[in-house]
Amino acid sequence: MSSPRTSVAQLRGFITACLERLGLPPDEAATCGRLMADAEAQGSDGHGVIRLMPYARRIRAGGMNLHPKIRIAKEKAAMALIDGDNGMGHLVMSRAAQVAIEKAKNCGVAWVGAQHSNHAGPASLYARMALEHGMIGLYFAVGNANHLPPWGGTDMLLSTNPIACAIPAGDEPPIVLDMATTVAAYGKVKAKAQRGEQMPVGWMIDRNGQPLTDPKRAGEGFLLPIGDYKGYGLALVVGILAGTLNGAAMGSETIDFNADDVTHTNTGQAICVIDPDAFGEGEAFKRKVDQLIREMRGSARMPGVDRIWLPGEQSHEKRLRHEREGISLPTALLTQLDDFARGLGVQPLPRT
Amino acid sequence: MSSPRTSVAQLRGFITACLERLGLPPDEAATCGRLMADAEAQGSDGHGVIRLMPYARRIRAGGMNLHPKIRIAKEKAAMALIDGDNGMGHLVMSRAAQVAIEKAKNCGVAWVGAQHSNHAGPASLYARMALEHGMIGLYFAVGNANHLPPWGGTDMLLSTNPIACAIPAGDEPPIVLDMATTVAAYGKVKAKAQRGEQMPVGWMIDRNGQPLTDPKRAGEGFLLPIGDYKGYGLALVVGILAGTLNGAAMGSETIDFNADDVTHTNTGQAICVIDPDAFGEGEAFKRKVDQLIREMRGSARMPGVDRIWLPGEQSHEKRLRHEREGISLPTALLTQLDDFARGLGVQPLPRT
Repeated sequence: MSSPRTSVAQLRGFITACLERLGLPPDEAATCGRLMADAEAQGSDGHGVIRLMPYARRIRAGGMNLHPKIRIAKEKAAMALIDGDNGMGHLVMSRAAQVAIEKAKNCGVAWVGAQHSNHAGPASLYARMALEHGMIGLYFAVGNANHLPPWGGTDMLLSTNPIACAIPAGDEPPIVLDMATTVAAYGKVKAKAQRGEQMPVGWMIDRNGQPLTDPKRAGEGFLLPIGDYKGYGLALVVGILAGTLNGAAMGSETIDFNADDVTHTNTGQAICVIDPDAFGEGEAFKRKVDQLIREMRGSARMPGVDRIWLPGEQSHEKRLRHEREGISLPTALLTQLDDFARGLGVQPLPRT
Repeated sequence: MSSPRTSVAQLRGFITACLERLGLPPDEAATCGRLMADAEAQGSDGHGVIRLMPYARRIRAGGMNLHPKIRIAKEKAAMALIDGDNGMGHLVMSRAAQVAIEKAKNCGVAWVGAQHSNHAGPASLYARMALEHGMIGLYFAVGNANHLPPWGGTDMLLSTNPIACAIPAGDEPPIVLDMATTVAAYGKVKAKAQRGEQMPVGWMIDRNGQPLTDPKRAGEGFLLPIGDYKGYGLALVVGILAGTLNGAAMGSETIDFNADDVTHTNTGQAICVIDPDAFGEGEAFKRKVDQLIREMRGSARMPGVDRIWLPGEQSHEKRLRHEREGISLPTALLTQLDDFARGLGVQPLPRT
C-alpha cells in the first residue's frame, strides 16, 4: 500500500510530545503516550490518537489535573480504592492495575476501584496488564456519556459501561474480551454518520421503540443494550461496581465528556486480578486455555464463514502487523493532527 | 384463584423428605430443600421442584456422591478452591459462598471457585447469600449441557454459562441480575415446545445461520448468544473463570446432565464477594443504590410501557407473593410429583 504510514514508536513519541507541551510531566506524558499508541496499534482507533484533541480541550479548560496526587484512599489485604485526584485516567488505572497485581500475588485475587479518574482509553489496556504476570484481568468502567435508558424508558441514565477480561494462554495469543454492554458503541454510530452510511437495524431505536437506522438522527434515539433487558442489567451492575461502589459518578451524575470540558467527571473504573497459580498450577492453566482456544477455532463452520475468531485475536493480529508495518491513519485525521501539533509547536507526526 | 396451592414451607418439607429418602443426610437434604424451594418461590421454576426427578435419576444411577467430603483444596487470604467431591451443587456452592463471605470480611473482597460440583440451581441463589451481610455477590457457572457453538461455528462447545450479580440496597429491594449469556435459556425453548408455541426470531438459528422458530426442531440448531459475538465471548470467559480456572469441565469436556446420569460432571462454579464497607461506608452505599434504583424506575417511558423494572425486582415480588399466598404448580407437574413421591414412600405434596 502506498498510503503514508507511521510507526508505533513514532506515534508514541508524537503523543508524548503533545502531552508534555500541554503541561503533563515527562514521565506521565510518556505513560499516556505509550497507552494511547497501544490502543491505536491494537485497532481501538476510537480510543487512540484521535483522543488527543478532546483531552487537550479539557486540559486547556482546566477540567483535568495535570499534577494529580494519585493515592490509595482505602485499603485492605485484597482491595484498594484509588483516588485519582482528577488526573488522566491512563495514569490512575495504570496505578490501579499495579496495585491489584501486587495484592493478587499475596492474596490470590484483588479488586481495586478508582474514583476521581477520567477517560482511560479501551478497557482491554488495563485488563491486559495482568497478562505479563501470568494473571487474569477483569476491568469495568462507567462510560463518559449516557446514551442508554433503562429498558422501556427514554431518559438516558446509563452509559455503554464496558467490560474487559484478559486471560493468559501458553502458545496461543491471550483471550481478550473488550465489549460495550450495548450492541454498538457510540463511536461506531458517529463513524457511520461521517461516512454517510445507514446503521443496521438493532443498533439504535427511537423514542417510540422503533428501529432507528439513520445515524444523522442519532440524537433522537438510544443505543440498544445487548440481549435487550439483559444488557440494561449488565450496564447497570457494571456501573455500580465501577462507579457507585467507588464513590464515583453514575446515572444522572455522569458528565458528558464530549459536551462539557470543565466539570470534573469523577469517572469510576475497577480492575480485578486473579492469579491462576493460587488455584492450581499456572502453566497447566495456560495449556488448558490453549486447548480450549484450539477447540473453538477448530469447530465446524457455518456456510460462508472462513475462520472462527477468539475474543482479542483480531486485535492481536493488528498489533503484530502495526508493529511490523506501521499504522496508516486516515488523511483527515492526519491533517487535524498536523494543525494540532503546529498549535502546540510540536513536530508533525512523521510518516514514511 | 381456585387452582390448588402449596406453601413455600410445604414445598421445602416435601423436597427435603424426598431427598432424605434418596439417601442424603438430613441436614444436607434440608439445605437442598430450602434452596430448591427458594428457587421456586422467586419464580425460577426451571430450577425448582421440577429438578427433583433428574436429580433422583442421577443419584440412583450412582452419578452423584451422597456423602461428599466437601473441602478447601487450595487457599490464600482472599481465595479458595473448593473440591465438591461430586456432591449436590447446592451444598458445594453454599459452602463456597460461606467461605467467600468470611474471607471478604477480612480482605475486602474474596473469590472462591469450585470443582467436582454439580448443578446448583439458579445463579442468583448464591450471589444473594452476600446480601445478608450487606455485601455484593457475583456468581459464574458452567452450564450443564452445551447448546452454543463459537460464533460462526456449528460444534456445540459452550453452554449458556450464566452470570449473577446481587447488590444490596437500603429501603429498596436489592438489585439481582441473573442471566444466561444466550438470548433464551434452553428451558424456555423446551417450555415453548410443550405448549406447542413458536419461538420468536432471535432465540435460535439453524446450521446455516437462518432463524429457527419451531421449538420441535431445536435439535437442529443452536441458541443465539446475546449481542451475537459478544455473548459468545462472554460465555467463553465465564466458562474459563468458572470451569478451567478451577480444574473443572469446560468446552468439549462438559457432560450433558440431561443425557448422561452416570459420568461425574465435574461442574465448575465461582463466587466473588465484595464488601462495600471496605470501599467507603456500607450504609451510604446502600442509600446511593436506592437513589439509582429510583432514578431508573422514575425514567420517562416508551409508549405502552407501564413500569420500568430493576433487575431482580420481579423475582422479589414473586417471592413475597408466594410466601404470602403459596405457589400454584402446573397440574401436570403435580401429577408427576405425586407419582414420584409414591415411588419413594413420601407423603404427596400438600395443597390447599
